[in-house]
Amino acid sequence: MAAEQNNPVYADLLNAYDEKLTHSGINGERVARRLYELSRIGYTEPGGVRRPGLSAEEKQAKALVKQWMEEAGLAVSEDGAGNVFGRLEGKKGSAKAIASGSHVDSVPNGGNFDGPLGVLSALEVAESWKETGYVPEKPYEVIIFTDEEGSRFNSGLTGSRAVTGDIPEAEMAQLRDYDGKMLEQVLLEYGSTLSGFKSAVRDLDELELFVEVHIEQGKRLEAAQQPVGIVSGIAGPAWLEMEWTGQAGHAGNTPMTGRKDPLAAAAALIQRIPDIPGEVSDTAVATVGKLEVAPNGINVIPEKVIMHADIRDIQEETRDRLLERIIAEAEEVAAGRGIRLDIKQNTRIMPVPIGGELQASLARSLESFGIEPTYIPSGAGHDAMILGRHLPVAMLFVRSRDGISHNPKEWSSLNDCVLGIHVLKDFIEKRMDS
Amino acid sequence: MAAEQNNPVYADLLNAYDEKLTHSGINGERVARRLYELSRIGYTEPGGVRRPGLSAEEKQAKALVKQWMEEAGLAVSEDGAGNVFGRLEGKKGSAKAIASGSHVDSVPNGGNFDGPLGVLSALEVAESWKETGYVPEKPYEVIIFTDEEGSRFNSGLTGSRAVTGDIPEAEMAQLRDYDGKMLEQVLLEYGSTLSGFKSAVRDLDELELFVEVHIEQGKRLEAAQQPVGIVSGIAGPAWLEMEWTGQAGHAGNTPMTGRKDPLAAAAALIQRIPDIPGEVSDTAVATVGKLEVAPNGINVIPEKVIMHADIRDIQEETRDRLLERIIAEAEEVAAGRGIRLDIKQNTRIMPVPIGGELQASLARSLESFGIEPTYIPSGAGHDAMILGRHLPVAMLFVRSRDGISHNPKEWSSLNDCVLGIHVLKDFIEKRMDS
Repeated sequence: MAAEQNNPVYADLLNAYDEKLTHSGINGERVARRLYELSRIGYTEPGGVRRPGLSAEEKQAKALVKQWMEEAGLAVSEDGAGNVFGRLEGKKGSAKAIASGSHVDSVPNGGNFDGPLGVLSALEVAESWKETGYVPEKPYEVIIFTDEEGSRFNSGLTGSRAVTGDIPEAEMAQLRDYDGKMLEQVLLEYGSTLSGFKSAVRDLDELELFVEVHIEQGKRLEAAQQPVGIVSGIAGPAWLEMEWTGQAGHAGNTPMTGRKDPLAAAAALIQRIPDIPGEVSDTAVATVGKLEVAPNGINVIPEKVIMHADIRDIQEETRDRLLERIIAEAEEVAAGRGIRLDIKQNTRIMPVPIGGELQASLARSLESFGIEPTYIPSGAGHDAMILGRHLPVAMLFVRSRDGISHNPKEWSSLNDCVLGIHVLKDFIEKRMDS
Repeated sequence: MAAEQNNPVYADLLNAYDEKLTHSGINGERVARRLYELSRIGYTEPGGVRRPGLSAEEKQAKALVKQWMEEAGLAVSEDGAGNVFGRLEGKKGSAKAIASGSHVDSVPNGGNFDGPLGVLSALEVAESWKETGYVPEKPYEVIIFTDEEGSRFNSGLTGSRAVTGDIPEAEMAQLRDYDGKMLEQVLLEYGSTLSGFKSAVRDLDELELFVEVHIEQGKRLEAAQQPVGIVSGIAGPAWLEMEWTGQAGHAGNTPMTGRKDPLAAAAALIQRIPDIPGEVSDTAVATVGKLEVAPNGINVIPEKVIMHADIRDIQEETRDRLLERIIAEAEEVAAGRGIRLDIKQNTRIMPVPIGGELQASLARSLESFGIEPTYIPSGAGHDAMILGRHLPVAMLFVRSRDGISHNPKEWSSLNDCVLGIHVLKDFIEKRMDS
């Protein structure tokens, strides 16, 4: 215990903890200790972890949670993709289950909340029921999805997509991890097989709803001064690759008139982009994060610029309208400056809307804890996004300090985490009765 | 002779040659053969050459020209920097000399006109005098400057700067060539010494004027449909390095409002830059040729953008006004978008103006050959730029096909080259009498 208290994660969580939040079977000290114990698996530096999908570290983290699941009275099973299910039968044995969970893998030098908080929140609801003797009407499942982050294969959401059957066979055959190993080999080393992986597809009619607690990884709750918020939809990204081709020339000998400068043209679009999403919707975002100039010499007018735009919204209609607006503006700029423009659309993921009734129900749960509902579009993908293509999903965000994530500095206060669990419990219990 | 005629350089030069241009002792066929013979030294591919400064190839090219100089009756000398002087005494022994020339080194895969045309033009004037029995009033010098291009040391104009004393001792001590050899070692292998190199500084009072013929390396003469034009000044580049620092963030989770996107800010400047030079002068140019984004991920708002601007004009006053305008606009954009901007000025070379009287004299010579004067600012540096800091200089540009240079496709027609030599001869003869 002394060692734990000296650990920054554990001590810092408890330092500012309001003990009064430990009630109704939800125990903040237990949550802090479990966050700490997971933080030791794949520990890299103070606050940092490395638990790639299907690694020994992810497996070890799952084994620890499985033990806690059993202690909480859940029946534990694992599918061929390494997804872990801790199931509690309800009074109505034939009812569809309500499920909650997240993942325990991490990016290469990640933090301690992205994933684990969602798993421990779902588990803490079961712990609270065990402590108070509450038996749900419907079955309840706590789920750990495998390899959400995708740092292993450069392609994420592996476990949830295995469950929903959203990984094409061609992708399974092509996936290679950071060491060049194929998925099949990685599965063998993990203790599964490719055919086991394929058999992870589940009859999703068994589930009524999936609800995920996750850190916000943004600053909106901090700005709103609220501990927990409601995800209003999960944005689907569309990625555009734009190749602008002009005419290279000597920066000194080429007069300004008649130049065909692809960087000046691309810049005319890039500087406009921050203004366009707001013209389409309040939740839309567009970003140019990657840009390459050729030949990239100080005294040479560029010949070519390749830039990538990331365009998102939580509604497909507005996302696509934004996409079209950006393409139209790009084409207008290129034509006006004598530049050839080639556009490729590399990625196009469907946004997942979250039902208004589910959001309203979450709002009522928030309000019962005195929290003013804040509605936040999720810009990043989550396991709930994958499940949301097939069944109703809901998400709660817990406030992130400074919006930092995928970084050892990732942090949410224990008070905020525990409030999130209370809201989750209240929301689930109301669904159990409906 | 058969081999020469099969060579693309030689045959193509002569193919479209107007024999009537061979008169007054200037011989187009001789110029073509000499361009061809130089093209064999460091030959890389049809039309391409590689003759780095102070290399065996540059030395061999100089040896060949020295032989032609002697045959033309010039007294040949070479200084410790490898610069070659072919001198013809005038009737007035005590007068200052008129000099003309250029260089015979090349960029790694360069063409056959950048440099050699200026040397052979100056030599052809002496050839014509030998043929016609003309004896100039003042001494005349044909000069080959060493290592103009700078492909050897990543720092050019070596020979002309050695003559004018414009290479600081610190630079001499630091220069390393592409193999890591120091200047001193390179000089020893070439057959000179560092102290010999230092002794190349010349009393520039011995020279009245330096006039250089060079290919345009641009498209203005082609657009004006004129074979030869007058250089109105040599632009001095100023290089700005601008570091724009904003705040990285997830492209999906960060709302548009409150973003600090350094790429959007830099773009707002870059798209404006093509319009700014024209507001300052007709000859000013500004280019952003190099730009780096960090971390350069598709789904990450950039944290930092480093861009380089190349700003030139033939008058220092307007060049500096342009520089200040661009800096002011950059600072305004950065402040308006919450971006930190750090600006470094890495290079600042003084532009070299060309005297109005010398330009008027060149115009009269052009007109006497029925050529309408076109005035062209030289955006690139030349040996005349270095000499121009210390004595009057003039420059003639010969039309370049498609503006291509530093490339095996570099080309000027023999007609244009020979017209340039006629103009040079007329201009020099008038100066001899003045």
